[in-house]
Amino acid sequence: MKLWQKDTAALKEVETFTVGKDREMDLYLAPFDVLGSLAHTRMLESVGLLDKKDLADLQSALKEIYQQIEKGTFTLQHNVEDIHSQVELLLTQKLGDAGKKIHSARSRNDQVLVDIKLFLRSEIEGMVNAMLPLFDLLQTQSEKFKDHLYPGYTHLQLAMPSSFGLWFGAYAEGLVDDMLTLKAAFEVVNKNPLGSAAGYGSSFPINRQMTTDLLGFSTLNYNVVYAQMGRGKAERVVAQALANIADTLSRLSMDMTLYLNQNFAFVSFPAELTTGSSIMPHKKNPDVFELIRSHCNRIKALPNEIAMMTTNLPSGYHRDLQLLKEHLFPAFKTLKDCIEMAGLMLSNIDIKKDILMDEKYKYLFTVDLVNQLVLQGVTFRDAYIQVGRSVEDGTYTVPEQTPISNPHEGAIQNLCTKEIKSLMDKAVSDFEFGKVHHAIKSLLQ
Amino acid sequence: MKLWQKDTAALKEVETFTVGKDREMDLYLAPFDVLGSLAHTRMLESVGLLDKKDLADLQSALKEIYQQIEKGTFTLQHNVEDIHSQVELLLTQKLGDAGKKIHSARSRNDQVLVDIKLFLRSEIEGMVNAMLPLFDLLQTQSEKFKDHLYPGYTHLQLAMPSSFGLWFGAYAEGLVDDMLTLKAAFEVVNKNPLGSAAGYGSSFPINRQMTTDLLGFSTLNYNVVYAQMGRGKAERVVAQALANIADTLSRLSMDMTLYLNQNFAFVSFPAELTTGSSIMPHKKNPDVFELIRSHCNRIKALPNEIAMMTTNLPSGYHRDLQLLKEHLFPAFKTLKDCIEMAGLMLSNIDIKKDILMDEKYKYLFTVDLVNQLVLQGVTFRDAYIQVGRSVEDGTYTVPEQTPISNPHEGAIQNLCTKEIKSLMDKAVSDFEFGKVHHAIKSLLQ
Amino acid sequence: MKLWQKDTAALKEVETFTVGKDREMDLYLAPFDVLGSLAHTRMLESVGLLDKKDLADLQSALKEIYQQIEKGTFTLQHNVEDIHSQVELLLTQKLGDAGKKIHSARSRNDQVLVDIKLFLRSEIEGMVNAMLPLFDLLQTQSEKFKDHLYPGYTHLQLAMPSSFGLWFGAYAEGLVDDMLTLKAAFEVVNKNPLGSAAGYGSSFPINRQMTTDLLGFSTLNYNVVYAQMGRGKAERVVAQALANIADTLSRLSMDMTLYLNQNFAFVSFPAELTTGSSIMPHKKNPDVFELIRSHCNRIKALPNEIAMMTTNLPSGYHRDLQLLKEHLFPAFKTLKDCIEMAGLMLSNIDIKKDILMDEKYKYLFTVDLVNQLVLQGVTFRDAYIQVGRSVEDGTYTVPEQTPISNPHEGAIQNLCTKEIKSLMDKAVSDFEFGKVHHAIKSLLQ
Amino acid sequence: MKLWQKDTAALKEVETFTVGKDREMDLYLAPFDVLGSLAHTRMLESVGLLDKKDLADLQSALKEIYQQIEKGTFTLQHNVEDIHSQVELLLTQKLGDAGKKIHSARSRNDQVLVDIKLFLRSEIEGMVNAMLPLFDLLQTQSEKFKDHLYPGYTHLQLAMPSSFGLWFGAYAEGLVDDMLTLKAAFEVVNKNPLGSAAGYGSSFPINRQMTTDLLGFSTLNYNVVYAQMGRGKAERVVAQALANIADTLSRLSMDMTLYLNQNFAFVSFPAELTTGSSIMPHKKNPDVFELIRSHCNRIKALPNEIAMMTTNLPSGYHRDLQLLKEHLFPAFKTLKDCIEMAGLMLSNIDIKKDILMDEKYKYLFTVDLVNQLVLQGVTFRDAYIQVGRSVEDGTYTVPEQTPISNPHEGAIQNLCTKEIKSLMDKAVSDFEFGKVHHAIKSLLQ
Repeated sequence: MKLWQKDTAALKEVETFTVGKDREMDLYLAPFDVLGSLAHTRMLESVGLLDKKDLADLQSALKEIYQQIEKGTFTLQHNVEDIHSQVELLLTQKLGDAGKKIHSARSRNDQVLVDIKLFLRSEIEGMVNAMLPLFDLLQTQSEKFKDHLYPGYTHLQLAMPSSFGLWFGAYAEGLVDDMLTLKAAFEVVNKNPLGSAAGYGSSFPINRQMTTDLLGFSTLNYNVVYAQMGRGKAERVVAQALANIADTLSRLSMDMTLYLNQNFAFVSFPAELTTGSSIMPHKKNPDVFELIRSHCNRIKALPNEIAMMTTNLPSGYHRDLQLLKEHLFPAFKTLKDCIEMAGLMLSNIDIKKDILMDEKYKYLFTVDLVNQLVLQGVTFRDAYIQVGRSVEDGTYTVPEQTPISNPHEGAIQNLCTKEIKSLMDKAVSDFEFGKVHHAIKSLLQ
Repeated sequence: MKLWQKDTAALKEVETFTVGKDREMDLYLAPFDVLGSLAHTRMLESVGLLDKKDLADLQSALKEIYQQIEKGTFTLQHNVEDIHSQVELLLTQKLGDAGKKIHSARSRNDQVLVDIKLFLRSEIEGMVNAMLPLFDLLQTQSEKFKDHLYPGYTHLQLAMPSSFGLWFGAYAEGLVDDMLTLKAAFEVVNKNPLGSAAGYGSSFPINRQMTTDLLGFSTLNYNVVYAQMGRGKAERVVAQALANIADTLSRLSMDMTLYLNQNFAFVSFPAELTTGSSIMPHKKNPDVFELIRSHCNRIKALPNEIAMMTTNLPSGYHRDLQLLKEHLFPAFKTLKDCIEMAGLMLSNIDIKKDILMDEKYKYLFTVDLVNQLVLQGVTFRDAYIQVGRSVEDGTYTVPEQTPISNPHEGAIQNLCTKEIKSLMDKAVSDFEFGKVHHAIKSLLQ
Repeated sequence: MKLWQKDTAALKEVETFTVGKDREMDLYLAPFDVLGSLAHTRMLESVGLLDKKDLADLQSALKEIYQQIEKGTFTLQHNVEDIHSQVELLLTQKLGDAGKKIHSARSRNDQVLVDIKLFLRSEIEGMVNAMLPLFDLLQTQSEKFKDHLYPGYTHLQLAMPSSFGLWFGAYAEGLVDDMLTLKAAFEVVNKNPLGSAAGYGSSFPINRQMTTDLLGFSTLNYNVVYAQMGRGKAERVVAQALANIADTLSRLSMDMTLYLNQNFAFVSFPAELTTGSSIMPHKKNPDVFELIRSHCNRIKALPNEIAMMTTNLPSGYHRDLQLLKEHLFPAFKTLKDCIEMAGLMLSNIDIKKDILMDEKYKYLFTVDLVNQLVLQGVTFRDAYIQVGRSVEDGTYTVPEQTPISNPHEGAIQNLCTKEIKSLMDKAVSDFEFGKVHHAIKSLLQ
Repeated sequence: MKLWQKDTAALKEVETFTVGKDREMDLYLAPFDVLGSLAHTRMLESVGLLDKKDLADLQSALKEIYQQIEKGTFTLQHNVEDIHSQVELLLTQKLGDAGKKIHSARSRNDQVLVDIKLFLRSEIEGMVNAMLPLFDLLQTQSEKFKDHLYPGYTHLQLAMPSSFGLWFGAYAEGLVDDMLTLKAAFEVVNKNPLGSAAGYGSSFPINRQMTTDLLGFSTLNYNVVYAQMGRGKAERVVAQALANIADTLSRLSMDMTLYLNQNFAFVSFPAELTTGSSIMPHKKNPDVFELIRSHCNRIKALPNEIAMMTTNLPSGYHRDLQLLKEHLFPAFKTLKDCIEMAGLMLSNIDIKKDILMDEKYKYLFTVDLVNQLVLQGVTFRDAYIQVGRSVEDGTYTVPEQTPISNPHEGAIQNLCTKEIKSLMDKAVSDFEFGKVHHAIKSLLQ
């Protein structure tokens, strides 16, 4: 029997459908919902919409809830729809009518807006904190393996000598650019939507600058219609930044699966970090890298998913937005796990020595040889012909002293590790985490 | 007969296939290719790889080509494959062997990398210059129509009073956030890949910092492997920024098509900006907005397309990257056209007066009425019940003096136009266009 | 402390990372894993790789496990990695060494391949069974509301008279085309990969046609390399088919949110199926439709996600494929829930009468009026001028008897409900569910 | 000066913007527009809306235009907006007022709908015709190289012996499944929307079944609202089918670039089909495969782009749809070019012999060896231990007679080329091209 052939029982299914996974998703928001209420109630008191006694009681009760959340003892009761209701319920049970006053001059809409902004801001900081150790590791390994030459490919064809110093350093520098788009996401996120109510403001004389300062936001989403429009947009911009980091990890993983392949055999890993078989002794499946790659490629599809879900919605709140949480919120942990795993693997990497001594790589040095002749005064054309002929008639041999001498910035012998580190330091210093920490600490005191 | 059943004639088809639209795409890059060569040759001379006479000749000839490009008289000859070859051909025709020296210590790979970076950097500036007048217009219209109230919707259901002051101001503020991701794209783009050669550096003692300074880049893509990896990444990050701007315009257009619909009928446009029919006098098709929406939604799919084309490519150059130009390069003009068209439409908008006087909007004021009672000392619960009853028993009427008084930041009566303008000014001041202009001017002198 | 600074504890995290959600996902596959083993063991016995006694024991034990799964009492034990291991564990606990024999001439790879194919085949049938009642409902409502005229829009501008008969019928017919792509997905899915082992076949003399018949597949994925390549492809093709159904529901929901909007006010729903407010009596938020729209738009992004995760993977198994389950498997239930909810809403819809009597719709009839004049012998040009003039000078009035007479196929007065039903019947009859049922029933006897 | 600060000159820019690339795109539709008019006019005459003389004149003039298009002499005049106007202009110049009568009982909307359906139907046939020779070639090469063994990989790690017989055969079988989704696209496309007018039908007593028969459609898009909704949907479904074919080619190309890489060195191609360098003699860049891969990956992003452009548009025509042509229409030629190029390359492939003789592949045979022991009566466990020990203590050697004997369906020694060919024949026979050809031929007689 179809749902629509049933009687009133249908209503339960409707509720199940509309609530969906929201209870689960709201747990991500729990601490931020309390922070929002801590700021909001202080503002309400300051403009005369709450008396001092109620404020003191609410602050005390809210901080208690915050501690429960920190301790992991906070849950949504069975029949409670969302985080906002659960907090209100706890407050009302404890304080009676005062508990309901936290909703004055606020709507469910701007409450969830500010929760999401605070959550995303916190997760961005967590992402920065996950990226930096990986960056440092990549730089360390870059210096450690700077003399480990291996073939550089173009078109997947042997091209010129490269090194694992370059390889690690390249991914380190990649994270610097990823940090720049993460910084832009932080700037978009770090603005206060609280006070926009249902997207059209409130007729109460609220003080939005005050909650902005209390919550450590850099500024406001001023326009209340825009504050509402920020939902979907903040998520998309953050997802774009995650996608950029994910792309770096995904490509790194692709390289690793290739270099671990026995036809390349440039690198290896301890047996406990790969999976194998006793009858196929050189089978070392790089499952960790394959799963990093897969997770990261999925994250790369996330901005598009968010765009698809919000495209052509007219301005104003729509319930559609509720579902944006479901793939974005868990993506932070997934990406951080991928970063951790990549770090674990790369810190245990073993890199083959003297890779380029293999006969099949001998022609890698021809370009350098031509260049060396040019530097010795031969014209390029003559040098090219001379080397070409030696290749053709079989007299070409790899020079005793391999002519590698790439002295310029960013080349094998000049990795610019410090300069790249400076770029990262500069990028990270632009995040205003200190201001945020100070504000949150004050709120919770 | 299939291609593979033919004789040698196939080779021509192979060339046609591999060249593809590249000749057309390379015209976008022409001026930037010349700029790159102007800087590269000056650097070559400074490190002793070019003599003074050749440098002077090359500089003079390159500047001449640049002027041809500016004048629009530059073309790719029929049998010439790409922009680099065309420039070399012109130089060689004029200067003989000296013309070939511009390729010393450089590869086709880093040449196109720097061309693309310079092109994208220039287009980003063009985009900023297109966005600012639209931003100003939106702010002007926001102030002009600040008293034009109309219904605010949530769930597409009538919710609370809004205003066209809010509506215009919201999209203005949206552009501020869009500017932030465009700024991140600028930072990623404004780094010099020149000198990375085929992605593994050069054995010539080149000076990459010098070309960085000459071309006005903020810094280098240091690591040569990363410089090459930047291809595909720069394009994707820029496309993400364009997608964000496009999303703002797309949503604006959706609103407009809705508000122009006769069931809403909030706005109208001069007959010459819509299409109509003499037997259906109130048909005013908003073709311009529909096409803006469609173009912009396509641009929103562009970052995903770029990601799809580059996913799981190992590090190192691949010919796949060539095709990234084809949808990205024209997107700048498309998006700027959309901005222009949106500006044209919105500057000619006519907004209906006294929209909220219509009986069907009367309940919009109930929330404000409850709030007013609360401010007069009634408890929220009692106020809500009182208003609810008046609605139920039919005694509710819209208050003579509509109780709208939203004094807080970003509300109907406090649009914060100046504050939003300050945010935009701050965002734009972070772009280092002045440094760029100065460098390019010096290069061309 | 980062993971890579820890000691051996890291290994546990690696396991947690690589297992991921696979235990959860494998529950979807449980019954199909047992079906695969029922067929595989019968085949093993037939080619002499299993003796009759072992076969009888295994069949009996496997059927018992199947019944546990049906009853919902089957679970994965805490320390068991996946469904295959759990089944083997149960068999070994009961039958000793015989339990291990089910893995002869089979690899984990083709085992999961066949599980997924059987699962997808079953879910496609479930989807057909969910779509048909909605199709019937749409047709019923189409007939019921065939005289309920309302405005048809082009460019969201009033254009010509339409009807709810047409509206419902359009979405019914949409499901017919969606059924065609679902049928193609069924054909791709309904092929047997079992026996491809790790993607390179087995040196055992297995009989793949026999398992094909036993499992009710229409044919084999013959080539063993292709059988493995089918992973990712089957998922993508099925996701495309789901995306097409989702698009139909998403658009239907968009229409509904618009028509429920008070400016249109064409339809309404019982209070218990919308959410409202006592002080805003005509606020009826269409949350159900908004969530259908959002779920469906997310499903529309799924084929792209799958493509992103599998792009540029060389042939052969990769662990990446494991994660394809996570968003696809739950999508079936989500989409079926959306179908149920759409049915519930549409079966309770109330449609306003005499919508077109409203003065603002009067010009909708001008096109028909011109056509009527033409049919009476006036040239089109003269008819157009005549009607245009009456509009211009204000003498135009809606004809007493509205001139609607659309006698042709598919028009307001000739909905072709039966013909569309025939198309659906034809589409559904192409699925070979009967053959599948018969085979599965035989396997389980 | 911004556009909106200009005077009336703006109007020209508006026209330029709204016309966009439509003139260029319409050339794709030209022959189909004429076919549509040939059918429409015959129907008009049959229901008394056109007299016999006009019909004869129009048929004759339309056939003449058709021949111009065939010959390539048809163009859109400078000031003519689209194909429909150009055809009407030609007819009116020749026949006077009769030329205008082709628009009776038809709207621009259903005219372009039927043009697109006819165009897509024709392109699908072209795609089938391009795929079949590639399928045949893959099967031929599969048989030719069936004894060319090479390593099969899982996780990109050496796993078990495979063969180029399997490799070619796998891609051949892949095209069979791709044909199934192309067939579904054909079924969706092969329905007649003509007569739906602006999406709400016509008040003329037209005969839609007649035009359906004349144009060789299998049936009608009955419901006129659905006929209009088909725009965007037909495009998406066709793009999905193209994406599936593209994915097959993209993966094939990835394999080829890998196998051509010198670390694998399984295959090579004639120098004229790769690009190289005289000083790097074994550099053979697979540009053709890289460009196939890139084009195909872009096509894989196309369904998502179309979905993004049409998401959340309410029912009824929107101008947005115009832009769907721009990336879809050229995609057919691109994909057919990729198919041709893949065929050219694969027909010239040279495959290394005795690849598996290389020492590094010796462990590939261990699985087969274990299986052989099992078949000789050793238990699996014992066989596994025995082989494992020989590997461990270094006594393992590749058996003189490599134990490969994969007799089952689809394995190395049993490629099932005929069976796969039968599947393809069956898939292709489901297309009703014969009926289409017959109808079109009759129309043009």
